[in-house]
Amino acid sequence: MNISDRDQATIWHPFTQMKLQGKLPAVVGAEGTKIFLEDGSVLLDMISSWWVNVHGHAHPHSIERITEQVKKLDQVIFAGFTHEPAVVVAEKLLPLLPGNPSRLFFSDNGSTAVEVALKMAIQYFHNKGKARTRIIAFENAYHGDTFGAMAVGGRSVFNTAFESLFFEVDHIPVPVQGREQECLEVLDSLLRSQEPAAIILEPLVQGSAGMVMYAPEMLNEIVKRCREKGVLIIADEVFTGMGRTGKLFAFDHIAEKPDIICVSKGITGGFLPLGLTACKAFIYDAFYSDDKMKALYHGHSYTANPLACAAAIASLELFEHPATQASIERITQKHKAFVKQYSGSPNFRAVRSTGTILAIEFETGNSTSYFNDLRDKLYAYFIKKGLLMRPLGNVVYVLPPYCVTDDELEIAYQAIAGLSHQPLTSLL
Amino acid sequence: MNISDRDQATIWHPFTQMKLQGKLPAVVGAEGTKIFLEDGSVLLDMISSWWVNVHGHAHPHSIERITEQVKKLDQVIFAGFTHEPAVVVAEKLLPLLPGNPSRLFFSDNGSTAVEVALKMAIQYFHNKGKARTRIIAFENAYHGDTFGAMAVGGRSVFNTAFESLFFEVDHIPVPVQGREQECLEVLDSLLRSQEPAAIILEPLVQGSAGMVMYAPEMLNEIVKRCREKGVLIIADEVFTGMGRTGKLFAFDHIAEKPDIICVSKGITGGFLPLGLTACKAFIYDAFYSDDKMKALYHGHSYTANPLACAAAIASLELFEHPATQASIERITQKHKAFVKQYSGSPNFRAVRSTGTILAIEFETGNSTSYFNDLRDKLYAYFIKKGLLMRPLGNVVYVLPPYCVTDDELEIAYQAIAGLSHQPLTSLL
Repeated sequence: MNISDRDQATIWHPFTQMKLQGKLPAVVGAEGTKIFLEDGSVLLDMISSWWVNVHGHAHPHSIERITEQVKKLDQVIFAGFTHEPAVVVAEKLLPLLPGNPSRLFFSDNGSTAVEVALKMAIQYFHNKGKARTRIIAFENAYHGDTFGAMAVGGRSVFNTAFESLFFEVDHIPVPVQGREQECLEVLDSLLRSQEPAAIILEPLVQGSAGMVMYAPEMLNEIVKRCREKGVLIIADEVFTGMGRTGKLFAFDHIAEKPDIICVSKGITGGFLPLGLTACKAFIYDAFYSDDKMKALYHGHSYTANPLACAAAIASLELFEHPATQASIERITQKHKAFVKQYSGSPNFRAVRSTGTILAIEFETGNSTSYFNDLRDKLYAYFIKKGLLMRPLGNVVYVLPPYCVTDDELEIAYQAIAGLSHQPLTSLL
Repeated sequence: MNISDRDQATIWHPFTQMKLQGKLPAVVGAEGTKIFLEDGSVLLDMISSWWVNVHGHAHPHSIERITEQVKKLDQVIFAGFTHEPAVVVAEKLLPLLPGNPSRLFFSDNGSTAVEVALKMAIQYFHNKGKARTRIIAFENAYHGDTFGAMAVGGRSVFNTAFESLFFEVDHIPVPVQGREQECLEVLDSLLRSQEPAAIILEPLVQGSAGMVMYAPEMLNEIVKRCREKGVLIIADEVFTGMGRTGKLFAFDHIAEKPDIICVSKGITGGFLPLGLTACKAFIYDAFYSDDKMKALYHGHSYTANPLACAAAIASLELFEHPATQASIERITQKHKAFVKQYSGSPNFRAVRSTGTILAIEFETGNSTSYFNDLRDKLYAYFIKKGLLMRPLGNVVYVLPPYCVTDDELEIAYQAIAGLSHQPLTSLL
């Protein structure tokens, strides 16, 4: 039996209706933007494998760092002990994070980074003797799949079965063009009627919601108004961080800064799972006490795993290369040119970009939805053209590794452009 | 500055009151049972670095497997694709798991493995059109630190700040000696008055609660009664799995089997974070449908990370060696001999063991509690003797890697035995 057949007998895949999925292609290797399949075919990874492989696959520098580390120290309990790879990650990352955070807390993925952030915010008030536990979040937000992360996410088909078990959260509209005033009015009303503990934000771009983009000025205004009321600001930069919006972090685009910031995905360059939650000194200080009860009792067995830290060091070192920033800028400009050229195409309801993220929202007649039939047809269309794209409903996006060449980008652009004019029914 | 100083300036450690902690020793390497510190000293890792390094540190077979894999495939999105390392993990692990589960779902750590299990159980009933969402769990349980995992955990000082945000859970007493009847009565009353969706169990040994042990017959009886009422059985074998209780899984000791099982920690031999949730076919079948809404919409970016899978394969291969099982048996017997010899010692309220887990509960005059002063004094005492032990309140435990030698075990036993008779105030 080949790998695909064996897979079908044993594994339950994430975010997948297994009955409709059929056999899954087996990946036998990957390099740069290329993914090599068991059947000999090659795909261009235009979504950085779920937004993680920022430098492309199998970067030799990352391989070297991990290979070195595995010979030195595999793992050690991170309560009561420390090690150099974790310290280097903290020393390299903290100065790069917006808002001058003072402390770094380690966990294993984006969901746990968010859970830690929520716990920091809620216990911050608890430690100060204040009962502020309410969280504000965006409508249609996605912050992860654990219960706390789901609770602050939007209510959708993804979590209907669990909704009755979520703690209450106040959702505000995303300030996309045309809804700015509505967003601020709902926010103001919440800030008047209660004392929220924190607001959690997907800054500038909501990924899973369909690459929904809004203006930096609106992000700045929301943060300003929340801060005036003593609401802690949590930036979920799990998706937007590590260069995706054109700057290293989305909050680098605005004057206001977060109090707590979540990082994952690209931090290890797509090699290993790692979640990080950084906070400003005043938050850490509320836990720093002679009272043991004021400590943050959170920790996973592999917290600050040395191999994941080595991968993060490699990724951060690659970001230090001027070539990486140049590449981010190059992709940003090429995306902008595509937006300019194809905005107004009959089949495109909207074409938009922020930094290295390009999104094309297809006209469907129906409302945008993850389960639109169009999604599966688009997915198959791009695979046939040798492109791994993973449309969110009727939204196709290009989120390439920064090593992508102009020629490779052109292949993706041309495949999308091929769908811009003639009736989709004749093309897909 | 040395690593310890640099750590103190930047990092927030898990489960740690940073003010009382002081500088943390920096680990520069580890091999087998040995941990090498920056200052040149050596510690024997008698807790397998938070219960994960089952084969000891830096096992050459694990290093080889990870080093090979990092050159082949770093990472690829696990929705829409598969790869051999994940398939091999599933093929090797599924037949070893109690209850003949048919499917394996991947995530990143024990907390997420538990969150996935809870979601499988709740959505199972949702997909069948039944509104069963209530969960039964043990008092003082520990299932992880994300909101869902915390909700099914015991209510304690660890989570006071967050308690108002937990979904309601029914807790039953742990059936330790003397409380068997009470446990079954509370359980029966719950089973009569409502329709719970699932029960989540730490089988045979509750780890964090203080290595609390109860009889296999009681576990079997609880499962039997729940099953009769259609309650799904979730086994949290994150701690007890991978040989800890003397058999590969704690449920191997009894006739009844779980419907869903969570595995993490030792599965990668202490090299990399990985969480696994396996389920029986009838659960998977309730999600397998032409209806997309019935899918399990859960997934982390690094789901089934190939490097973590390679580490898991190495660990499973090491379990295939007869020497590993022999070592587990050897440790089990030595622990039993210790229990026999030191039960009834004036300073020991209780001495107990299950498989490779030995626990000594110290007499304190006060009730057992994590924050007992004694805990810090014991920790320091063992460190001075070159032993990494991490008492849970007044409970000292020995949970060695399976590569531990008899001589090394003796060092730990002697250090504990040294505290058995004279007044603790004169010894610590």
